Amino acid sequence: MPNLRPFLRAALACSLLSALTTLATAQAASSPVAQAPTAATAPAPAKPLSVGEILAGSPDSDWRTPDAANTLYMDLAAGRVVIELAPQFAPEHVANIRALARQQFWDGLSIYRAQDNFVVQFGDPDAGEPSARSLGDARRHLPAEFERPAKGLTFTKLPDADGWAPAVGFADGFPAAQDPATGNAWMAHCYGALGAGRDMAADSSNGAELYVAIGQSPRQLDRNITLVGRVVRGMELLSPTPRGPEPMGVYADPAQRTPLVSIRLASELPAAQREHLQLLRTDSATFAAVTEARRNRRDDWYKASVGHIDLCNVPLPSRETPAGSR
Amino acid sequence: MPNLRPFLRAALACSLLSALTTLATAQAASSPVAQAPTAATAPAPAKPLSVGEILAGSPDSDWRTPDAANTLYMDLAAGRVVIELAPQFAPEHVANIRALARQQFWDGLSIYRAQDNFVVQFGDPDAGEPSARSLGDARRHLPAEFERPAKGLTFTKLPDADGWAPAVGFADGFPAAQDPATGNAWMAHCYGALGAGRDMAADSSNGAELYVAIGQSPRQLDRNITLVGRVVRGMELLSPTPRGPEPMGVYADPAQRTPLVSIRLASELPAAQREHLQLLRTDSATFAAVTEARRNRRDDWYKASVGHIDLCNVPLPSRETPAGSR
Repeated sequence: MPNLRPFLRAALACSLLSALTTLATAQAASSPVAQAPTAATAPAPAKPLSVGEILAGSPDSDWRTPDAANTLYMDLAAGRVVIELAPQFAPEHVANIRALARQQFWDGLSIYRAQDNFVVQFGDPDAGEPSARSLGDARRHLPAEFERPAKGLTFTKLPDADGWAPAVGFADGFPAAQDPATGNAWMAHCYGALGAGRDMAADSSNGAELYVAIGQSPRQLDRNITLVGRVVRGMELLSPTPRGPEPMGVYADPAQRTPLVSIRLASELPAAQREHLQLLRTDSATFAAVTEARRNRRDDWYKASVGHIDLCNVPLPSRETPAGSR
Repeated sequence: MPNLRPFLRAALACSLLSALTTLATAQAASSPVAQAPTAATAPAPAKPLSVGEILAGSPDSDWRTPDAANTLYMDLAAGRVVIELAPQFAPEHVANIRALARQQFWDGLSIYRAQDNFVVQFGDPDAGEPSARSLGDARRHLPAEFERPAKGLTFTKLPDADGWAPAVGFADGFPAAQDPATGNAWMAHCYGALGAGRDMAADSSNGAELYVAIGQSPRQLDRNITLVGRVVRGMELLSPTPRGPEPMGVYADPAQRTPLVSIRLASELPAAQREHLQLLRTDSATFAAVTEARRNRRDDWYKASVGHIDLCNVPLPSRETPAGSR
């Protein structure tokens, strides 16, 4: 039985992210009543709720179930990675990715690139060559979808400054930015963002070759390449992919690639094979409370709090769908 | 022979970081003459130098060899991770870490925690228990070293805004921040930062349990825990550590931990066993040029450039020491 005490070192500050991504709905909640003073005594300073307590006390209406038709299951030998696609940002790419998934394009292909502190990339290592797998009825050519009009998006703005864009926040769960001067919005390259690899031409991606941001978020790619969604569960399976030793993280030996067992649309699977996954609505009061609890740390471990959070440090909580809501 | 063409997709934007961390000194440099107009023609727009070209053309005086007495070699089965310690920020911790390395404290211990998008942590999984390995002549108790007076540091300020601190930049190679209001400076938790795990008390770290930041840089830890240095080579060996499935990235089965073959001070090894590693001086003109080339991307792949770079996105180039300088 390993002794857990040493894991507390430096861990107390760190435990919340883990709780956020694996949040058990059975988690005990502090009663909000504890925050109210009793009638007989002077108000005591309220003990701020932890993120776990905030989430455990959240109403079901603050959670959403991602659309199965825009959810990809990427099955690796190590387990399942769940991806939410973003047709509101990249409709043409998402339609093509759905077509590719329906024809099981990625099954048996691989993660053929893992560049440390940058991206893992998967698809067909022979793309563009005569030996490449056919794209079937998917399109070979798509327009670049780097940005879109902000109008029509539900954009929840963060008050926090951002160096990369005039305004940042969340739209339908996706970290995003916008520029009032152009009226446009775009997804941000935060950890876990899913993008469509391209060559030199802006419109050279077709969605068959995809990458996921790992490491420090590469925001310099924003508006330079089409983002198509984000990983909502299973980054811990994808991010430890052994880094390729060649330039750009490529493997010299194809045997070092990580096989893709399959990539499927959730909507194509029988209900019994689907995940019971919910995501916190980024336009909800609970999300605002979680973000604030991370912006101003008030638990005893923290000695200094800067009153700031970066877009890509904001947690995006998920949970198992409560049994009664399935 | 794998076909390399598909790796170009999304890769052109991405190839520089790889080049920066494995920079071959034999890399061909563009002649700076190409930037000067000829006498007979009107000035043509100068083609900006790539980061690789900037580095290849740099004078040797812009590079430094880290002090062997403050360099740790962390040897894993997968290879060697090189760490530069920062006595200018955490003198007491660094002295203790040096004492621990001299007595081979970490040899045969393990990476016992890997929490996705946060940290890997190593040392003695039994720390604090009767079964714990002796700290020998190292100290059990140290003061917290969260910040220090900015005075006395060579601080190269970045012009770029930062949400976490009033001013950010680099000091002796380390990403750092400072607050003119307090006159203090501190190291920043960028990707690859090395810190000393602690319990609830600010002064509960002793340097035996260490962590390295992986994933999106956890800047909220700044000034909350003692940073002691940074990984300068080999992050690609450390960051793919399989994530622990238990809370905080702990492993249920001790066999899943990654063994530490040894951690040694470079100065304790015979010269023949030392790395020939140089780091770009962060107060050099070359470093400023590299940072600017990343702040304003001018290569053909980039369609948009925001004129900004975050502290933790600035590359910290290293190279093999030229044969003539060893």
